[in-house]
Amino acid sequence: MNTRINCQWRIARRPVGLAKESDFEWREEQVQAPGPGQLLVRNHYLSLDPTSRAWMWEEGTYLPAQRLGAVMRGITVGSVEKSNNPAFPEGIAVTGALGWQDYAVTDGASEFLMPVPSAPSIPPAMHLGLLGHIGMTAYFGLLDIGRPKGGETLVVSSAAGAVGSLVGQIGKLYGCRVVGITGTDEKCRWIQDELGFDAAINYKSESVFKRLRAHCPRGIDIYFDNVGGAILEDALNLLNLRARIVVCGMVSLYNDVGGSLNFPAGPNNLLSLMVKRARMEGFVCLDYLDRAPEAVEALLGWHRAGKIQYQLKVIEGLRNAPRAMNRMFDGSNRGKLVVKVS
Amino acid sequence: MNTRINCQWRIARRPVGLAKESDFEWREEQVQAPGPGQLLVRNHYLSLDPTSRAWMWEEGTYLPAQRLGAVMRGITVGSVEKSNNPAFPEGIAVTGALGWQDYAVTDGASEFLMPVPSAPSIPPAMHLGLLGHIGMTAYFGLLDIGRPKGGETLVVSSAAGAVGSLVGQIGKLYGCRVVGITGTDEKCRWIQDELGFDAAINYKSESVFKRLRAHCPRGIDIYFDNVGGAILEDALNLLNLRARIVVCGMVSLYNDVGGSLNFPAGPNNLLSLMVKRARMEGFVCLDYLDRAPEAVEALLGWHRAGKIQYQLKVIEGLRNAPRAMNRMFDGSNRGKLVVKVS
Repeated sequence: MNTRINCQWRIARRPVGLAKESDFEWREEQVQAPGPGQLLVRNHYLSLDPTSRAWMWEEGTYLPAQRLGAVMRGITVGSVEKSNNPAFPEGIAVTGALGWQDYAVTDGASEFLMPVPSAPSIPPAMHLGLLGHIGMTAYFGLLDIGRPKGGETLVVSSAAGAVGSLVGQIGKLYGCRVVGITGTDEKCRWIQDELGFDAAINYKSESVFKRLRAHCPRGIDIYFDNVGGAILEDALNLLNLRARIVVCGMVSLYNDVGGSLNFPAGPNNLLSLMVKRARMEGFVCLDYLDRAPEAVEALLGWHRAGKIQYQLKVIEGLRNAPRAMNRMFDGSNRGKLVVKVS
Repeated sequence: MNTRINCQWRIARRPVGLAKESDFEWREEQVQAPGPGQLLVRNHYLSLDPTSRAWMWEEGTYLPAQRLGAVMRGITVGSVEKSNNPAFPEGIAVTGALGWQDYAVTDGASEFLMPVPSAPSIPPAMHLGLLGHIGMTAYFGLLDIGRPKGGETLVVSSAAGAVGSLVGQIGKLYGCRVVGITGTDEKCRWIQDELGFDAAINYKSESVFKRLRAHCPRGIDIYFDNVGGAILEDALNLLNLRARIVVCGMVSLYNDVGGSLNFPAGPNNLLSLMVKRARMEGFVCLDYLDRAPEAVEALLGWHRAGKIQYQLKVIEGLRNAPRAMNRMFDGSNRGKLVVKVS
């Protein structure tokens, strides 16, 4: 086993703008043997998320900054190949932040490692999407922070993305009018025709403010914000009394920084929060790990009942991870983006 | 009675920058007699509030915009001189949004009119401050939206103002470390030496961010925001996990607009709300009118027990109201500003 090779992407430098392949370094190392209490995991799928880009910043966010030279942080699903840790027996499936690499040695107590069910009806990559951090983000973000009520109007940005596409569908199940904002006409059609959104706005070709005003005739009760920036400002201008803004991410800003948090200026109309007695609140799905079973049960139930759809885009080969990451920023991505590692 | 004169300030134009006396029109009219169901109130004191300036905007906020030519909106305390409305008998004291004028005729159902106790121990102007909208704003804003816990760090801007000076003192009663931001060294000394704030920052002569960092060694748990703008950005950079930002007002912006809501750009670091799982929430004291007795009982109790101080600045004469209003924006005001009308 010690002669096997572990391919890795490590961070070589802080990207300026979109991350380039040259911001990473490809490394091939011998697979390490697990020490006492440790286990060796073989990664099968790697999750690519908008937050991957933010994890490359010089400053930390909700997780510490990664140092240059480290294996790029990433959530994976894999199987335990060798174990000296009875909590993770050989052969089981696990998920955790095991990085952009073929194999990882871990003590099982860090990297948010946890076992996941391995069943024929649940493809492994689903643990990086519907049943993983993506599903939890959509479920707890919308329900715990957004608190939708029937008849309310829910607006979602990055609506064809992994999280946004789930948020909109859950919003429909809770009786909301759902308006999605995304970047191509094809994705607009998809979220309306396939996912059941009531309306869709192409932010690249339409005036978001005008179209929001048209599609939200009774104002906005919940804005599930994945993008920040100008669209947040538009939404703030249309809030209803006691509206909620769920701050899930601000993807429009993630490539604007050269390794720090010096964003462009923010929305000019935050006073709307006072005028409308509105609440703007952030969250991170990591805070909900202890309630994961609740989300998994609900999401899997809805999925099996045909009530929510879930699309996976699989990129073949770890080698292609850096280039694939930018699909989430150039408008070409739809649904959940994963890399098939091995 | 019909020969008596009612002096008024009406809005003549939308101010650009600080309101000038020429933005108002002085009118002297005959006092009107109340019709069926109406009552005539003689105003004794008029409240000047930062929001008075926002009420002059072309666009409405939490109340509809005032039309040009209208009697300037303002909260007053007065006595019922003549009444055809059994809910408001002659001789009682009342408060409501009866405007910048000596007398007002009202139907008692609008202008948020309500009777207030008239006792020798409660000077009438107190109903515009500690026991009125100011006290309610501080009490419910801090306790309901901010939800302070002992040991937390509370930062207050406009800390020597009517609301801020109360917020800081209530925060101390709830066991918080309290840091106030205000505009002169004299006011810094006042909130520390007299009101018991733990620290004070002069935003005109010090770096707010550096001083906040020094005075909040364990970060900020609650930021009670009266000013918006650059200080909000500074506070966002120092939030603790699960911090709360109480959006009470954004005084730093109120004079920047020429009759609309086109503010300068907002804070560049709203992503902190996600990173810190923080909540930013607005409120308006009008929403708490039904809980007014709770605030009055608590505030009066603390005041009588010597636990909170309350400073009133009385301007003599309605004639001086327009000029006095700018005291709240040029740094010269301390405590609650009222005009003695008659």
